[in-house]
Amino acid sequence: MKVLVLGADGYLGWPTAMHFSAQGHDVIALDNFAKRQWELEEGIEPLIPVPPLHRRIRTWERVADKKIRLRIGDLCNHRFIYNVLSEEKPDAIVHYAEQPSAPYSMQSRTTAAYTQSNNVIGTLNLMFAMHKYCPSAHLIKLGTMGEYGTPNIDIEEGWLTIEHNGRSDTVLYPKRPGSFYHLSKVFDSQNLEFGCRIWKLRCTDLNQGVVYGIHTPETELDADLRTSFHYDDVFGTVLNRFIAQAVAGFPLSVYGRGGQTRGFLNIVDTIRCVDLAAKHPADKGEFRVYNQFTEQFSVVDLAKKIQKVARYLNYKTEINNLPNPRIELEDHYYNAKHKKLEDLGLKPTLLTETVLKKIFNEVKKSSKNIHNEAFLPKIKWAQI
Amino acid sequence: MKVLVLGADGYLGWPTAMHFSAQGHDVIALDNFAKRQWELEEGIEPLIPVPPLHRRIRTWERVADKKIRLRIGDLCNHRFIYNVLSEEKPDAIVHYAEQPSAPYSMQSRTTAAYTQSNNVIGTLNLMFAMHKYCPSAHLIKLGTMGEYGTPNIDIEEGWLTIEHNGRSDTVLYPKRPGSFYHLSKVFDSQNLEFGCRIWKLRCTDLNQGVVYGIHTPETELDADLRTSFHYDDVFGTVLNRFIAQAVAGFPLSVYGRGGQTRGFLNIVDTIRCVDLAAKHPADKGEFRVYNQFTEQFSVVDLAKKIQKVARYLNYKTEINNLPNPRIELEDHYYNAKHKKLEDLGLKPTLLTETVLKKIFNEVKKSSKNIHNEAFLPKIKWAQI
Repeated sequence: MKVLVLGADGYLGWPTAMHFSAQGHDVIALDNFAKRQWELEEGIEPLIPVPPLHRRIRTWERVADKKIRLRIGDLCNHRFIYNVLSEEKPDAIVHYAEQPSAPYSMQSRTTAAYTQSNNVIGTLNLMFAMHKYCPSAHLIKLGTMGEYGTPNIDIEEGWLTIEHNGRSDTVLYPKRPGSFYHLSKVFDSQNLEFGCRIWKLRCTDLNQGVVYGIHTPETELDADLRTSFHYDDVFGTVLNRFIAQAVAGFPLSVYGRGGQTRGFLNIVDTIRCVDLAAKHPADKGEFRVYNQFTEQFSVVDLAKKIQKVARYLNYKTEINNLPNPRIELEDHYYNAKHKKLEDLGLKPTLLTETVLKKIFNEVKKSSKNIHNEAFLPKIKWAQI
Repeated sequence: MKVLVLGADGYLGWPTAMHFSAQGHDVIALDNFAKRQWELEEGIEPLIPVPPLHRRIRTWERVADKKIRLRIGDLCNHRFIYNVLSEEKPDAIVHYAEQPSAPYSMQSRTTAAYTQSNNVIGTLNLMFAMHKYCPSAHLIKLGTMGEYGTPNIDIEEGWLTIEHNGRSDTVLYPKRPGSFYHLSKVFDSQNLEFGCRIWKLRCTDLNQGVVYGIHTPETELDADLRTSFHYDDVFGTVLNRFIAQAVAGFPLSVYGRGGQTRGFLNIVDTIRCVDLAAKHPADKGEFRVYNQFTEQFSVVDLAKKIQKVARYLNYKTEINNLPNPRIELEDHYYNAKHKKLEDLGLKPTLLTETVLKKIFNEVKKSSKNIHNEAFLPKIKWAQI
């Protein structure tokens, strides 16, 4: 199978590219390094310095004896993605190539408009390129559970069958997200559903929970192959940040009372889910949505779980309830379905103490790189 | 009341500006004349030549003894709309300033991306400008009934109360539209709902049906004050096009079997609805949606209605079923609610034979300007 990974320089893109390459697939890694630019704007560094993608690919070739090909460019330049798809005609396209941070999008008008324009127009260009050059390719698009918001009813997997005034229809699940970033992902999904409808594209939209973890089997093979791990308030996901805070002896910063419940998954399950989606492609014209997470916790329960392991490891870890910089419910119903990927064979890697200890151990190795000033939220939803 | 009309050079914007001015309000007309550029791109002319907005405003001043102030600029230039709102601080903002054509958006990647970027980023800039300079202003945003698509359940007014697995929630009505243009309007609505939620903006989203008609009380006062009337396949709405076809002795072009049912309203009711929304503003933080139409017909029934009046007026009018250039259901359930504006006092102007004859009579006066080559659809959804 020929697999094109968009956003292959990132936290999830790089392990995804190595995974498919390790399985013997022909992998093309594509990136424009925009994320590294955003990190510079924010003055943020990943926990572990990340070598240029060219070097990581050379190391992969040496370590695994496999080639990954590299294409450098921006999806917002439609000529670039037209060229790539006309030349490569991949079987599967894994699309991580978007601005991925809610706080980044809520920083200013500039970053809000940039996030929506970059994500929506980039994905639109990709759809047109697929329609033109590889209409049978399977697009695996990364979305987020955050698109749903916190409805007072069960969250289904992308579609919802409604009974209303004695009639019935199956509709796109009504989403009501909490940032301009999350809105951009909702817009992508709606454009893609339309593309499947009118052009018979194939699309799997993975509404992913909060990812945590630092290693996949391939990232452990060589120091050069490690992935970009963020613990900061802009690009760091909450569990990764909590562990870095614990290791640095900094209180775990819980926003508000921490009642916000979210779905979570280990980075190894992200790769496994994308793999399962690729092995079981959507039908022609099908827009299918999988909720991609394995467990749900409230933020405060997560903090307590981490505090427990931290104390076992002799870190004096406190929990600090900060005023919530976001505008979101802190006490809400949350029951999100996540059955379809398990039906395809996903065996969840749950958040056990063993798993947590392993992440702690890895973070500890780079603890000198942790800068405490990156922990606290600086971007406030109401004061944009 | 100080009223800012965005897109004041257009079919609906110009009569809206005159209406509020006639009522004694302080009106600012804003446009960037982008629509005139799109007409040139398509080689399309309105039925009646439309003088520059500057001249129309001078004529209005002479005829009505009222001033309308003019601001020229583009909402996609955020500095421009920031300046306007910081200087003017209007009480109400009526927002028509978007690329309004589904076929235009379905013409190419360029026009699809332009439509979504222009409409979404323009509206986003407007939201940020309101949040910064006039957070209590009431935004009256024109959306379209086309955003809903054709669900198999009743279409409610923007929000839907759902029972699911024994629980209940009121959610944004799930929309599934049929063009990149209509999608851009859905995205606007979702951004605006978020703006009301986090910044306590006030917004009325008018999901408008297909508008027909040529005159409002103010456009009839002077030849210079007439509005832009389109009968072509790109910017012409279906009823206006059918009447122009009948007058030109051209068969009425029905797409497919014409079973598509849509909501319709007279241009005088558009103005009345916007007026009612302005007089009864949304609360702080409220995102309310009104379905703005007065009657629903299938396209083929509409064609027959027009054929009947045309034959009474001695036009030999035939109906021609063309292959549908769009991808849409031609046989579907359609029951859209439209009660809220009538609750506020709207008295519908229905599509009677008298109303139709009056439009025929007006179109006939300019029949020498009708170019038959503008009637047939040239943009096909599947062949973009």
